[in-house]
Amino acid sequence: VVNIREKLYMIDCGEGAQLQLRRSRLRFTRLNHIFISHLHGDHCFGLPGLVSTFGMLGRTATLHVYAPHGAEAVFRPLLDFFCARLPYEVVFHEFDTQEASVIYSDRSLTVETIPLRHRIPCSGFLFAEKSGQRHINRGMTDFYRIPISEYNRLKNGADYTTPDGDVIANARLTTPPTPVRHYAYCSDTAYNEAMIPQLAGVDLLFHEATFAEADLPRAGETFHSTARQAAQIALSAKAKRLVIGHFSARYEDESILLNEAAEVFPAVCLAKENLRVSL
Amino acid sequence: VVNIREKLYMIDCGEGAQLQLRRSRLRFTRLNHIFISHLHGDHCFGLPGLVSTFGMLGRTATLHVYAPHGAEAVFRPLLDFFCARLPYEVVFHEFDTQEASVIYSDRSLTVETIPLRHRIPCSGFLFAEKSGQRHINRGMTDFYRIPISEYNRLKNGADYTTPDGDVIANARLTTPPTPVRHYAYCSDTAYNEAMIPQLAGVDLLFHEATFAEADLPRAGETFHSTARQAAQIALSAKAKRLVIGHFSARYEDESILLNEAAEVFPAVCLAKENLRVSL
Repeated sequence: VVNIREKLYMIDCGEGAQLQLRRSRLRFTRLNHIFISHLHGDHCFGLPGLVSTFGMLGRTATLHVYAPHGAEAVFRPLLDFFCARLPYEVVFHEFDTQEASVIYSDRSLTVETIPLRHRIPCSGFLFAEKSGQRHINRGMTDFYRIPISEYNRLKNGADYTTPDGDVIANARLTTPPTPVRHYAYCSDTAYNEAMIPQLAGVDLLFHEATFAEADLPRAGETFHSTARQAAQIALSAKAKRLVIGHFSARYEDESILLNEAAEVFPAVCLAKENLRVSL
Repeated sequence: VVNIREKLYMIDCGEGAQLQLRRSRLRFTRLNHIFISHLHGDHCFGLPGLVSTFGMLGRTATLHVYAPHGAEAVFRPLLDFFCARLPYEVVFHEFDTQEASVIYSDRSLTVETIPLRHRIPCSGFLFAEKSGQRHINRGMTDFYRIPISEYNRLKNGADYTTPDGDVIANARLTTPPTPVRHYAYCSDTAYNEAMIPQLAGVDLLFHEATFAEADLPRAGETFHSTARQAAQIALSAKAKRLVIGHFSARYEDESILLNEAAEVFPAVCLAKENLRVSL
């Protein structure tokens, strides 16, 4: 779940997602958008249960589900059967996984697909905050006795002209906008350098790391990545931090994955249930 | 899960069933039969994930799913889509929920449906061990020098005639078979006296108890039972023990349900995650 000022965006919805969401104490009512990377069960089998539970909780707001082409054909009959008298609407927004495109946009955020290389059509997601307004420096605006009615213009970068005709530069009256943050989610995917330009400079990259280096051939066959490959992508993209996850159950001790990644990209940690990362 | 000499029978398969099964450390390979009471999501949304995971674990044995009419039409398209190259077969056995019928039988066990009263077609399940053979009393058979070749006849209740023509009564040579055990699962259902004869004398009854007595009207509207009603069924059926479960989330402290049931039927306990009851 991506939490941007208490608006929640869920990425993938595996079996048990509603239980994890409940345990996380995030508010269900703040979640209006779900992004599904691909139609493998471990990424979407939690959807019917989540939709159903939202209905029982009396949800009325539309729930938007963004997913690769074909998702609605699979899930709509299930929802029709099990959630027949839902008090809210579920709207599917299907997308093409072959090319990057903006699939969601609001006042402060865009979500763009990232084409991934997997056994079936699969997309990652880039969450990019839009640049906000400059912040008023109250000390300075008070000093120049600037009326509040001017603030909006100042926030948008305008200079101020006093009644005497003096021009006060905007930079003296405001401070820069809060820096925008970028988060990219890439799972499931084989090692794919094509996505590096899109990931350039992200504050946080989640990249799958299903296998350790010893299982590199298996990673290739199944269109997954090794921990080292995930780290290589983070390094090449100059990401600030990396979280690796989606580990094969074969590794009892996942520290081998952490160590292999950290050799290439030190600012890495292992995903685990209910991990919370603040940007 | 009902475990009869390490053969496992799953009853209902809600979201997350595969995770709970893994945590229970029961062996997946011993599970060949799943019984679905009714087609509400909280009783069957775990099925696709379970089927899918069994496939990834390389299962080859057929998995039999017993469910009310309509189940295959709902789940087959999903399995076809998500579990396309499954290395084993999933066979649906659909049944009519209106009348009691034996839907499973093997050498040592029968499973019979129990018609329940719910908002949609719904069945409980009665697990009944078949009576086994009598046990040889080795002290006595040695005393009479009875050849081992006669043991099978003795186990089936036959008397023994000595070479001298004396008849030794079977009761002197054998002890009674191990008593058979009966387990009944009744969820979801409104209070329904019609099922009492079928439950007569069961060793263990699981009965839903969604509501406390204060919410009796709500129980009636939603075709669920109160804890006291569950206890009344157990009492009338002369069940030996009762487990109540399927509690509404509205009760933070479920001891109110336990207490209301215990006033009517003291041999009661609350179901909880991973509860294990031995018979």
